[in-house]
Amino acid sequence: MKIWYVGAYGIVSTTAMLGGKLIEKGRMETTGLVSELPQFEGIEKYAPLKFEFGGHEVRKVENAYVASLQHWELNRHFELDQLEEVREDLEKIRAEKGTAINCGKGVQALGELDVLENEVQTLSEIVERLERDVKRFADSETVMINSASTEPIIRYNEKYHDTLDGFEKMIEENAKEYASASMLYAYVALKNGIPYGNFTPSVGSSLPALKELAIEKKVPHAGNDGKTGETLVKTTLAPMFAYRNLKVLGWMSYNILGDLDGLVLSHKENKESKVISKDKVLEKIYGYSPFSITQIEYFPSLADNKTAFDFIHFEGFLGRKMKFYFIWDAIDAIVAAPLTIDIARFLLFAKKEGMYGVIKEMGFFFKSPMETRNVNTHSQFEELVRWYQENA
Amino acid sequence: MKIWYVGAYGIVSTTAMLGGKLIEKGRMETTGLVSELPQFEGIEKYAPLKFEFGGHEVRKVENAYVASLQHWELNRHFELDQLEEVREDLEKIRAEKGTAINCGKGVQALGELDVLENEVQTLSEIVERLERDVKRFADSETVMINSASTEPIIRYNEKYHDTLDGFEKMIEENAKEYASASMLYAYVALKNGIPYGNFTPSVGSSLPALKELAIEKKVPHAGNDGKTGETLVKTTLAPMFAYRNLKVLGWMSYNILGDLDGLVLSHKENKESKVISKDKVLEKIYGYSPFSITQIEYFPSLADNKTAFDFIHFEGFLGRKMKFYFIWDAIDAIVAAPLTIDIARFLLFAKKEGMYGVIKEMGFFFKSPMETRNVNTHSQFEELVRWYQENA
Amino acid sequence: MKIWYVGAYGIVSTTAMLGGKLIEKGRMETTGLVSELPQFEGIEKYAPLKFEFGGHEVRKVENAYVASLQHWELNRHFELDQLEEVREDLEKIRAEKGTAINCGKGVQALGELDVLENEVQTLSEIVERLERDVKRFADSETVMINSASTEPIIRYNEKYHDTLDGFEKMIEENAKEYASASMLYAYVALKNGIPYGNFTPSVGSSLPALKELAIEKKVPHAGNDGKTGETLVKTTLAPMFAYRNLKVLGWMSYNILGDLDGLVLSHKENKESKVISKDKVLEKIYGYSPFSITQIEYFPSLADNKTAFDFIHFEGFLGRKMKFYFIWDAIDAIVAAPLTIDIARFLLFAKKEGMYGVIKEMGFFFKSPMETRNVNTHSQFEELVRWYQENA
Amino acid sequence: MKIWYVGAYGIVSTTAMLGGKLIEKGRMETTGLVSELPQFEGIEKYAPLKFEFGGHEVRKVENAYVASLQHWELNRHFELDQLEEVREDLEKIRAEKGTAINCGKGVQALGELDVLENEVQTLSEIVERLERDVKRFADSETVMINSASTEPIIRYNEKYHDTLDGFEKMIEENAKEYASASMLYAYVALKNGIPYGNFTPSVGSSLPALKELAIEKKVPHAGNDGKTGETLVKTTLAPMFAYRNLKVLGWMSYNILGDLDGLVLSHKENKESKVISKDKVLEKIYGYSPFSITQIEYFPSLADNKTAFDFIHFEGFLGRKMKFYFIWDAIDAIVAAPLTIDIARFLLFAKKEGMYGVIKEMGFFFKSPMETRNVNTHSQFEELVRWYQENA
Ligand SMILES: NC(=O)c1ccc[n+]([C@@H]2O[C@H](COP(=O)([O-])OP(=O)(O)OC[C@H]3O[C@@H](n4cnc5c(N)ncnc54)[C@H](O)[C@@H]3O)[C@@H](O)[C@H]2O)c1
Ligand SMILES: NC(=O)c1ccc[n+]([C@@H]2O[C@H](COP(=O)([O-])OP(=O)(O)OC[C@H]3O[C@@H](n4cnc5c(N)ncnc54)[C@H](O)[C@@H]3O)[C@@H](O)[C@H]2O)c1
Ligand SMILES: NC(=O)c1ccc[n+]([C@@H]2O[C@H](COP(=O)([O-])OP(=O)(O)OC[C@H]3O[C@@H](n4cnc5c(N)ncnc54)[C@H](O)[C@@H]3O)[C@@H](O)[C@H]2O)c1
Ligand SMILES: NC(=O)c1ccc[n+]([C@@H]2O[C@H](COP(=O)([O-])OP(=O)(O)OC[C@H]3O[C@@H](n4cnc5c(N)ncnc54)[C@H](O)[C@@H]3O)[C@@H](O)[C@H]2O)c1
Ligand code: NA
Ligand code: NA
Repeated sequence: MKIWYVGAYGIVSTTAMLGGKLIEKGRMETTGLVSELPQFEGIEKYAPLKFEFGGHEVRKVENAYVASLQHWELNRHFELDQLEEVREDLEKIRAEKGTAINCGKGVQALGELDVLENEVQTLSEIVERLERDVKRFADSETVMINSASTEPIIRYNEKYHDTLDGFEKMIEENAKEYASASMLYAYVALKNGIPYGNFTPSVGSSLPALKELAIEKKVPHAGNDGKTGETLVKTTLAPMFAYRNLKVLGWMSYNILGDLDGLVLSHKENKESKVISKDKVLEKIYGYSPFSITQIEYFPSLADNKTAFDFIHFEGFLGRKMKFYFIWDAIDAIVAAPLTIDIARFLLFAKKEGMYGVIKEMGFFFKSPMETRNVNTHSQFEELVRWYQENA
Repeated sequence: MKIWYVGAYGIVSTTAMLGGKLIEKGRMETTGLVSELPQFEGIEKYAPLKFEFGGHEVRKVENAYVASLQHWELNRHFELDQLEEVREDLEKIRAEKGTAINCGKGVQALGELDVLENEVQTLSEIVERLERDVKRFADSETVMINSASTEPIIRYNEKYHDTLDGFEKMIEENAKEYASASMLYAYVALKNGIPYGNFTPSVGSSLPALKELAIEKKVPHAGNDGKTGETLVKTTLAPMFAYRNLKVLGWMSYNILGDLDGLVLSHKENKESKVISKDKVLEKIYGYSPFSITQIEYFPSLADNKTAFDFIHFEGFLGRKMKFYFIWDAIDAIVAAPLTIDIARFLLFAKKEGMYGVIKEMGFFFKSPMETRNVNTHSQFEELVRWYQENA
Repeated sequence: MKIWYVGAYGIVSTTAMLGGKLIEKGRMETTGLVSELPQFEGIEKYAPLKFEFGGHEVRKVENAYVASLQHWELNRHFELDQLEEVREDLEKIRAEKGTAINCGKGVQALGELDVLENEVQTLSEIVERLERDVKRFADSETVMINSASTEPIIRYNEKYHDTLDGFEKMIEENAKEYASASMLYAYVALKNGIPYGNFTPSVGSSLPALKELAIEKKVPHAGNDGKTGETLVKTTLAPMFAYRNLKVLGWMSYNILGDLDGLVLSHKENKESKVISKDKVLEKIYGYSPFSITQIEYFPSLADNKTAFDFIHFEGFLGRKMKFYFIWDAIDAIVAAPLTIDIARFLLFAKKEGMYGVIKEMGFFFKSPMETRNVNTHSQFEELVRWYQENA
Repeated sequence: MKIWYVGAYGIVSTTAMLGGKLIEKGRMETTGLVSELPQFEGIEKYAPLKFEFGGHEVRKVENAYVASLQHWELNRHFELDQLEEVREDLEKIRAEKGTAINCGKGVQALGELDVLENEVQTLSEIVERLERDVKRFADSETVMINSASTEPIIRYNEKYHDTLDGFEKMIEENAKEYASASMLYAYVALKNGIPYGNFTPSVGSSLPALKELAIEKKVPHAGNDGKTGETLVKTTLAPMFAYRNLKVLGWMSYNILGDLDGLVLSHKENKESKVISKDKVLEKIYGYSPFSITQIEYFPSLADNKTAFDFIHFEGFLGRKMKFYFIWDAIDAIVAAPLTIDIARFLLFAKKEGMYGVIKEMGFFFKSPMETRNVNTHSQFEELVRWYQENA
């Protein structure tokens, strides 16, 4: 299958490419790939573990090999000989120039950007270029994954965001302040029948306008924001307190990370999207909103080794207060990368089975799953399995 | 309803009595009581929150009020004015003399025991006395809960343990070395149609002989070993690694506690039962047995504030190793006590709905649930809810 | 001896009063009192463990007993019967009306304040009133301790803050925007020959003007900001990395607390003073400034049970990165209260031995010790011992 | 200078060799080397950072390069290109055949041993061979460091261990059951005027007989058991509770590690020496013995990434109980290796300044420093600095 990564030189994307190619060559186990669990037997018929990768980028890097190497310098998230084994494959992956429109100061701080808006003036020209690149690459087995840096929250605008007509008017009228990069990529994907998975908290395909487009074009899509790290643990653990009728008095979630992602998130406006998508889950699980703290801070020496500190204060029988602490010490890209492949595979499965619109049953993969209140990791997993098994 | 606690002056039992009476009087919320979740609406018709308590004991204490106060001295697990509010009710609860046969050095170390074997000689005399006490107390709404100190593992004996006939022969022949206290109590309960819940890892009703008796007498029973603390967290969290296809390289579980329970468990033979029942869950969840450490140590100053330290080493995509740590800092009796009430209520529900034998669907409450391999807290909870709702 | 607490109804002050009285009556051990270590043998000749307490307050509460009880409701930081034993003594302690001038929104949020500025108009009138109260109480064995809520940082003003003349001009000219409550209290103490200890990060006696006054009046003083909790651990542990030539890459300090103090600190301007005083210690220990995070957040259910999460990332031989985590789970007032008594005792000792000005050797007790760069807890302790033993 | 490592192919030794050579070539910073702190200016005149390495071993490995690589396979404790830079130097280091006499099952489990006792029969022949190897290598700038696997505790025998005469009689009489490898190495070093540092808990030079020899031959020696990891933190932190007059109710220390060292320690008899040397420090710091747990367990997947979990329960003012937790997540060899170089340098300094016998002032480096009760890391560091500066 083919995967088009928006943010193709990011650490998540390049780690997925590296791992994807190693698996394809039989040089690595499939640990971390949900779709390879026995429950999903048969998925390889829909989406074999053979990959072609492409994507859009806004930073100028030679190719995915070079990008991988740069991430490795900082992160040591794999062994160099793993990279060497697929060096040639990765050297062939060269991203196309993307757009960073309304991506905020966090993205600007990545360095001098190499973006379409340096070359063309209007939204419609930008969209045209994005579309040209995607169409050149895509076939009927292609999925687009957004794993670009997190955008700031864009002000919602009824006129332009509510309906597909409005959205296309926004492009036509070049109403730039209402458009953000992630919408444009999602628009291009859906318009061209390409399933779209949003691994980021950016708006992507979650606008009513684009949901309409997905239905019209009969394309499946899913998002938002890959559920890795602390939120994964939180949504696994939080139900326990509910099952036992224990009252959560407060939940502190404190995340630190270095790395490009951390740098981008150290910018207030970019961070906002992230924090919101992490914070709503407790209310969904408990029905009430316990006091909670959710913070992400930049801690450079950690690089991609995101570390989360959680503290849960809870009350039990006789009104007694008790405590639970956890520390999650993982490598973000390592947890995230295989999920992007899983998302692509399940979207392709959905497409081939004729499903379209938001695939709610894929909520398992996301921090803020669209169109569902189910955020309990356990029931999400059961839902995913049931959905797959009933449709496969 | 009526609950007969074996180990009536223990901290779990007395905390349950205290809380039960406070709830009955409307002086306390039902936090911690699973059976009071909205999912179990209607349970009060089967088992109202009105309680009469009795039980067997081996330590000489005046009454449940005095026992509570003694536990409070050490543990401060409630506010004194809570106890004062139900002082009279608790003063009326006076345990009957029990048996400590084959309860090991841990129980002997509790001090001079006041037990039936000081008065009578044979198993059949002991059983007779136990039966007399229980029958005097019980009505058709009575459940027996074993919350006595953990016994050592007793050597399994086919002749005496395999069948009900054999078991009764053991009593008759006074084959003392094959009988342990928990079996005798369970025998008395089941024989008299009283549902039996085993909150401890002691053998209790899990002998084939006694399972046969439960079927014959059409009595429901459930066990073993209340799932509180670290095992509760473990069985909630462990599935997450499975769902994400992450490989668990090792799981360390280190528990410290003070208190009587800790003292008993500081005796090697008594500890053994406990460690085994904590250790099998990973294998059941993963299908493979990751390297694991499970230890319980005595730490006097903590008293009942059992603290668990867990460390999980796991492998993800590209073979990377990652880490997860948790600390559980809770008060054992506070977590445990309401569960004994829940177990009693659900057993009474089962009885009233005509169910008997091992109630597998109550596995949610136990570390080593009988006759099921399901130890995943999430699916156990779902199972419990489904079972209740389908039968209520 | 006599201690005058600014913030007399606060949790630190009332806990010190309670403990002080219990010790005086021989009802409690002296655990937590540094001055009772064998190294300080003989201190009781200078400052016996017999106490009279008074103070200023801005909240209307009946007396120290009632204030204690209110803190207990929220914090359960002692056993009720401890309070009852000294109830009468505490009922007799009634604070005088203080000033909250420039104490910021944090203090305003404590509720309707009962302050001098409601009655009188000018700084000189306020000072007069404070002075009257203090003089009525004080004798030659009296020490003033500031344990009032943390003030915002006040803009430094050369004209009014640099010299004693300037300071008195500020009062005369009623230049209210340059005066804060803590300065006025400190001024009153020093002017009247009363040793002054600043347990808070507020400016207190650390203005050049007031240091001049202390010299002129030959009064000893010490501050700022009691070193409890996380900073205590940090300044004990941080030197280890230095001794071993390990490079600290980053140090995260994340503190949560509820309680009045937490509420006040949840106001940005009040928090600022606190964070600064916590943050400079690493630079002083290492000679370089490792990346660091220092945050304090409000977490209501914890009340005074301040919890600190620290993470230290460090580099060793061959450039390898390693990790250290700690969690401090203590009761702030319990750690703090005895220190205020210690500070009072050592200041009285200093006065009696003819020492005056900033007592640098008391840096052991403070987060931001005045006029010294020594923040290493270990060498501070040695310095304190040496100082005492050489002068006693 | 020259360093002779007993256990030359161990991870500590080979890491020291690797780092030593990289520093010598100016390819690495001196992070982790205590002797390179500014306080020890001038040490390079006594012991320059130029190294020649040799040693004894009992495992058959080609050379130190191959041994390094094997440790790297399991531990990834350095970057491969670091090793490549000094490959040739390390290939030249070939250990001599040592003795594993009375080294216990832990050492036997390392695989088929290649030891002198396979070739020669008597203690005196073994000693002769060891001596021949050492003398061939050593010059006046040579130090021997014992970094071999931990031996079991050997039964103390007055006749053979009390005096040098007795010790030499033991050799003569071939009283094998009283001799252990570490004594024989230490004997050879001291007899030949070679300073000896014992980085392990094995008995080494701490026998009265060998102390006598050191005095007679005027050779300095130091030990036992390198203070890294948890004990380092413990002896840094424990004094804080004493300084603040806080009562330690209990201290739990739980260590897990994989690796060869972990494997050896997973053998009961070998572990015993280790646990004892870790456990005495609290008593020395507090003057009383708080309840304590000290455990080391094998956890294979961690390899050399030794992880320690500590929990401290303490009591403060008003009898309140509070808690402190820490986790040490480091790489043992990385913390340990530079210390072996430091020990060698300071011993050479001592020798050149004419000091001999046990160098008590080097206690900073050891868990069980000989002939001193000072285990406080802070005052040990101060002592080391003072000693160096007064003598340099
Ligand atoms: N790593 C995780 O565990 C995880 C989990 C959930 C979500 N995410 C999200 O995934 C995204 C990627 O994370 P990452 O760690 O790979 O970050 P990264 O910074 O390494 O990669 C992002 C890449 O996107 C590129 N980019 C930025 N704006 C772009 C645009 N408008 N068009 C095209 N390319 C653009 C950047 O140049 C960069 O190469 C982030 O939004 C992150 O929040 C990551
Ligand atoms: N507290 C928890 O979280 C928890 C969780 C699971 C299981 N359990 C189990 O529950 C049991 C009770 O725990 P606890 O903390 O209340 O302990 P406890 O020591 O406070 O109470 C046990 C009581 O049983 C009594 N007893 C001992 N042997 C007896 C016998 N043969 N007959 C009658 N009475 C006997 C003892 O005298 C004591 O009063 C233990 O087996 C424990 O392992 C407790
Ligand atoms: N508790 C600790 O461990 C600790 C450590 C270091 C410093 N401190 C500092 O000690 C101070 C007291 O802490 P606490 O926990 O007792 O807080 P608290 O809120 O319980 O007590 C502060 C008291 O000061 C009173 N107050 C406020 N402004 C005043 C003013 N201008 N004049 C007179 N009274 C005033 C308040 O009404 C309150 O009663 C704070 O500044 C805190 O930052 C506390
Ligand atoms: N790594 C640390 O932080 C640390 C701290 C303090 C003490 N120590 C001690 O240092 C020693 C070495 O630790 P390591 O991690 O390098 O272990 P290791 O197992 O990697 O190395 C020990 C080496 O000694 C060799 N050996 C065993 N017995 C021998 C003998 N009798 N003669 C010669 N060689 C022998 C083994 O073959 C092995 O190569 C251990 O005793 C350990 O307890 C280590
Ligand atoms: Na870690
Ligand atoms: Na805690």
